[in-house]
Amino acid sequence: MTRTPSPGGAASVRVSAPATIGNIACGFDVFGMAVKSPSDVVVARATREPGVIIERITGDEGRIPVDPARNSAGAAARAVLGLARAGATAEAMASDSGNAAAGVAIELHKGIPLAGGMGGSASSAVAGAVAADRAIGAGLSRAQLLQCALAGELAGSGSPAADNVAPALHGGIVLVLPGRSLQVVELPVPAELWTVLVRPHLEIRTRDARRVLGEHVPLKAAVTQWANTAAFTAGLYASDWDLLSRSIRDVVAEPLRAGRVPGFARAREVALARGALGFSLSGSGPSVFALCRGGEAAERVAEGIRRAFGETAALDCEAWASPVNRHGVRVEDLEAEGD
Amino acid sequence: MTRTPSPGGAASVRVSAPATIGNIACGFDVFGMAVKSPSDVVVARATREPGVIIERITGDEGRIPVDPARNSAGAAARAVLGLARAGATAEAMASDSGNAAAGVAIELHKGIPLAGGMGGSASSAVAGAVAADRAIGAGLSRAQLLQCALAGELAGSGSPAADNVAPALHGGIVLVLPGRSLQVVELPVPAELWTVLVRPHLEIRTRDARRVLGEHVPLKAAVTQWANTAAFTAGLYASDWDLLSRSIRDVVAEPLRAGRVPGFARAREVALARGALGFSLSGSGPSVFALCRGGEAAERVAEGIRRAFGETAALDCEAWASPVNRHGVRVEDLEAEGD
Repeated sequence: MTRTPSPGGAASVRVSAPATIGNIACGFDVFGMAVKSPSDVVVARATREPGVIIERITGDEGRIPVDPARNSAGAAARAVLGLARAGATAEAMASDSGNAAAGVAIELHKGIPLAGGMGGSASSAVAGAVAADRAIGAGLSRAQLLQCALAGELAGSGSPAADNVAPALHGGIVLVLPGRSLQVVELPVPAELWTVLVRPHLEIRTRDARRVLGEHVPLKAAVTQWANTAAFTAGLYASDWDLLSRSIRDVVAEPLRAGRVPGFARAREVALARGALGFSLSGSGPSVFALCRGGEAAERVAEGIRRAFGETAALDCEAWASPVNRHGVRVEDLEAEGD
Repeated sequence: MTRTPSPGGAASVRVSAPATIGNIACGFDVFGMAVKSPSDVVVARATREPGVIIERITGDEGRIPVDPARNSAGAAARAVLGLARAGATAEAMASDSGNAAAGVAIELHKGIPLAGGMGGSASSAVAGAVAADRAIGAGLSRAQLLQCALAGELAGSGSPAADNVAPALHGGIVLVLPGRSLQVVELPVPAELWTVLVRPHLEIRTRDARRVLGEHVPLKAAVTQWANTAAFTAGLYASDWDLLSRSIRDVVAEPLRAGRVPGFARAREVALARGALGFSLSGSGPSVFALCRGGEAAERVAEGIRRAFGETAALDCEAWASPVNRHGVRVEDLEAEGD
């Protein structure tokens, strides 16, 4: 999959990274999963000029900065250039060849709604990192790409959490272990597990949503939460639907955040009545998600949630229902171009 | 396995329940595991007189109350009689036979040190519940026996937590899901997983140990803890020793409790240097545990911990190393006796 760098920059690469559901209810900051759509797309090509330039952004209504230092995709691409340069220098010192990459020009096409709680900035960061890596043929490892995408996510959203970046990169359902050396654990995905993601037309900024949490948690709620992260993990390994259903609950963040999403309580009620295994905020909201067993249940639940938001809170919604996205980021095509 | 009640009470049953390691570092109040020894033993026989009497207690230096209402084994046996009576009454109403059990006389032999953090009161409760059930032939379900043992544990130790009772009853490694309907999830046990349990000659009461925790946890520590309960669960399912090693950590209770156990820091250092996967307090201490891959490592670690307590804190220790106990409570024999 790794390309040899085209000196002077002739290759163009198109990379798509999916939206993700952070937290998955019980695992605040540690669980995340990828959905099939929507996605963000980054098109990148190597350039002679050093550094990153953002040539074009679509789908953002002009709201995302084109300054690569303040743009998830751009900042991630810069981190890739930095690592590639360091690697090339080390290689050059060893082999005396000195084939360092120069720069990258990128286009960002936002398919994921902004400030929706669907991990959009993380997806842009992952797409930006992978596209830059492929465009210049840096051949970074997945762990390095994760670090670059995290740098992008931090620049774009201000969040250092990896619960959106990791699933956008790896696909599937992941557990992120915090600490000095970040570790991503890929968890098994039961075959019939479907995701429902619904975005009511509201916006909540992650920064604000984190603020309402405070710095302490009641011990009792914390105990419930760590029982549930263990139970959710066991449920995935054992394809135990009852255990999944029992554990997809958030007693820590949701009670403090759900009040900002009018219609949330009714939407949950309808989702569970229509057979959802669980229902909660996606990340910090306002989008909500449900997990379901099978596609029919997922479609039924998605429709119920849309209606509940419409009837209770007069909110328009977009809704997506799909199996879990197992592959994560995808390199869509590579085109040779004139420079 | 269920015996028909001997009217008038002639059967004597001997039941042994193992010590347990509550919390297993990361899972405060939700994880527990059973070891092979030490154990508590309850001998019970049905009696014509209603209610529970405790005829004899050994191994407690006279410190455990013989009042069955304040004794784990006795209170658990009383709960069994209560459930059996309720069941018998319902049956009697249905079948008009009226074969209600009368009472139980029990002996309690403490093999598990008192106030050691090894789940001794829970083990007595489990042995008491199972022995009473067998002696009167009540045939309660495991879920009912769990409820009875929890009543015993609450009476004996004041703790409503199930992280010692559940593994003493089920064996192996269990996850206890709190909430209205308590659920016990049996987790897989990797074949080579060994336990080390070391009891320095100190006593800490569970009631006091809970008090130091307070009612809130820093959010950051809580996030680490729920990442680790998920990682520990994944490690057990996947037999992933690195993941187990990384996740057997307690950033919530241990920092507040370990200071009461002189020599703790040095004992941990030695245990990890000798190859332990993880090391922490067993329950609320003062006993400590380590988990190891294989018996040789376990013996080496046990010896190291003993020495560390001796050299650093001049504390004598007892130490036990064994594979995980997969069966839990055991009915050792049934003897027909004269009444």
